[in-house]
Amino acid sequence: MSESFQPFERLALIGIGLIGSSLAINARAHSLAKHIAISTRRAETLTRAEELGLGDSFHLQAADAVKDADLVILCVPVGSVGAVTKEIAPALKSGAIVSDVGSVKGSVIAQMRPHLPEDVEFVPAHPIAGTEQSGPDAGFLELFEKRWCILTPVQGASEAATERLKTFWIACGSDVEIMTAEHHDRVLAIVSHLPHLIAYNIVGTAYDMEEVTQSEVVKYSASGFRDFTRLAASDPTMWRDVFLNNRDATLEVLARFSEDLSVLQRAIRDGKGDQLFETFTKTRAIRREIIEAGQDTPKPNFGRTKPPKKWEG
Amino acid sequence: MSESFQPFERLALIGIGLIGSSLAINARAHSLAKHIAISTRRAETLTRAEELGLGDSFHLQAADAVKDADLVILCVPVGSVGAVTKEIAPALKSGAIVSDVGSVKGSVIAQMRPHLPEDVEFVPAHPIAGTEQSGPDAGFLELFEKRWCILTPVQGASEAATERLKTFWIACGSDVEIMTAEHHDRVLAIVSHLPHLIAYNIVGTAYDMEEVTQSEVVKYSASGFRDFTRLAASDPTMWRDVFLNNRDATLEVLARFSEDLSVLQRAIRDGKGDQLFETFTKTRAIRREIIEAGQDTPKPNFGRTKPPKKWEG
Repeated sequence: MSESFQPFERLALIGIGLIGSSLAINARAHSLAKHIAISTRRAETLTRAEELGLGDSFHLQAADAVKDADLVILCVPVGSVGAVTKEIAPALKSGAIVSDVGSVKGSVIAQMRPHLPEDVEFVPAHPIAGTEQSGPDAGFLELFEKRWCILTPVQGASEAATERLKTFWIACGSDVEIMTAEHHDRVLAIVSHLPHLIAYNIVGTAYDMEEVTQSEVVKYSASGFRDFTRLAASDPTMWRDVFLNNRDATLEVLARFSEDLSVLQRAIRDGKGDQLFETFTKTRAIRREIIEAGQDTPKPNFGRTKPPKKWEG
Repeated sequence: MSESFQPFERLALIGIGLIGSSLAINARAHSLAKHIAISTRRAETLTRAEELGLGDSFHLQAADAVKDADLVILCVPVGSVGAVTKEIAPALKSGAIVSDVGSVKGSVIAQMRPHLPEDVEFVPAHPIAGTEQSGPDAGFLELFEKRWCILTPVQGASEAATERLKTFWIACGSDVEIMTAEHHDRVLAIVSHLPHLIAYNIVGTAYDMEEVTQSEVVKYSASGFRDFTRLAASDPTMWRDVFLNNRDATLEVLARFSEDLSVLQRAIRDGKGDQLFETFTKTRAIRREIIEAGQDTPKPNFGRTKPPKKWEG
């Protein structure tokens, strides 16, 4: 963390899943806030957050957590941000920065903005980081390290507020990019939403095959299939909300994907080896770029280690 | 390796890519053959195999390598096995076990069988193991460890030959399953061939987007996309041949995949959240099964480590 970072007086985290808990751990480790107030609706989850020592105060009512907070971050599924914003709006401190971590930005802005008082600074954010795990136990310090966080400030927010939230994310280890919500939603549709949809779909297809048993799918999954199961193990609520809230961009890239797939399908049917070879060569290059950009490991098989194991039959 | 394993007199490996070189390393480490003869068509690759000390003798002509060999394993792309078999057939020793490592079995049998003399034992094999890397430098000892190897013995091969090849693969760390070539090709179509095709396709789609730059795709790839780039970085020749040689089974599972995708697409368009939630919950279970079966790591993000890195702009 840079020496010059001025900690927030009170950080309110509404929702304490993977992202919320990772933010709490970062805020504590890097002294980003003097007080961390945590709220979540389920009493059981709140108790767990308290057991883990993730914050300084714990609240079943989101409005209690945001009181006197100068930074409020909604860490709930994107389908819930409207209701939560409505609930906390009357309790928000004048001048507070209100942000979120949602994977869709257009819909989040549309849901939150109407409820927000004029005297708060609204700066939506999206950290491009995650794992397939969820809940308060899933959080860890390094989650945001060397990962991008995209801010999509809306008209009316001050540059100072955007700048302050930017330094917060940098202190968490992120690099920060600023773009419009519309562009964000298009970019994420192709790099994140479509990949998740495809992963969910292929795992579903395999699950429902008549001629191949589920046990066979599991046994031979190291031949490719298992790579998809990680994304397809992501939080169902979060992803349901993503698709419902980034519908148009997702359907658009999905149409492109299906069109491209028809071309490959035809090439296979017609035995066009040269065309397949050309496509498969082109795609190889993009992985090299991702590794060079530090966004994935160069180790074979993602550097997976094999677990010590008992064999199934 | 079991104490009772009787080493082969001469193991001939035709082709020395990821699988061939990993087999050579295993044969040496576990004393599975008294002599390892290596052949590959490209002089440069053969020289590299020799520099790496992968074998005892090195041959540009496959026929020279198989002479006096009691185990011959073709480790070439499945599109080349017919031509290679034709070439080595006259030099094969009577009673030799002839095998391969191809990802498709029906086509491999159809290509190889007509050329093989009656007095050799033909036992096709497919180790379900690999990485996205290729070439003689990619091989390593642990590749087959705790991974399945499928044998698809054809009519005419003796049980003794199948049993002997089975012990060879067990000595390499594999567990061995026996099934028909036809069933193998159906199973692999869903667990391996479709996943690779989909991965190649989605990476191709992202590459060709007009509204999102390639640099953005690379930067934000940790949000899901990067998982697909590993499979899409696999050897283009190998995969061209797989699709051309397992055409019918691949097209069949692809049709199923597309049908399922249309259902998801419709659910998104119609805002059917419950249906999406149900699908995404079902798929989560299959990853747990894969982890319990020891076929993937339980660590978040495949246990990837972040490379020390210089940022791009």
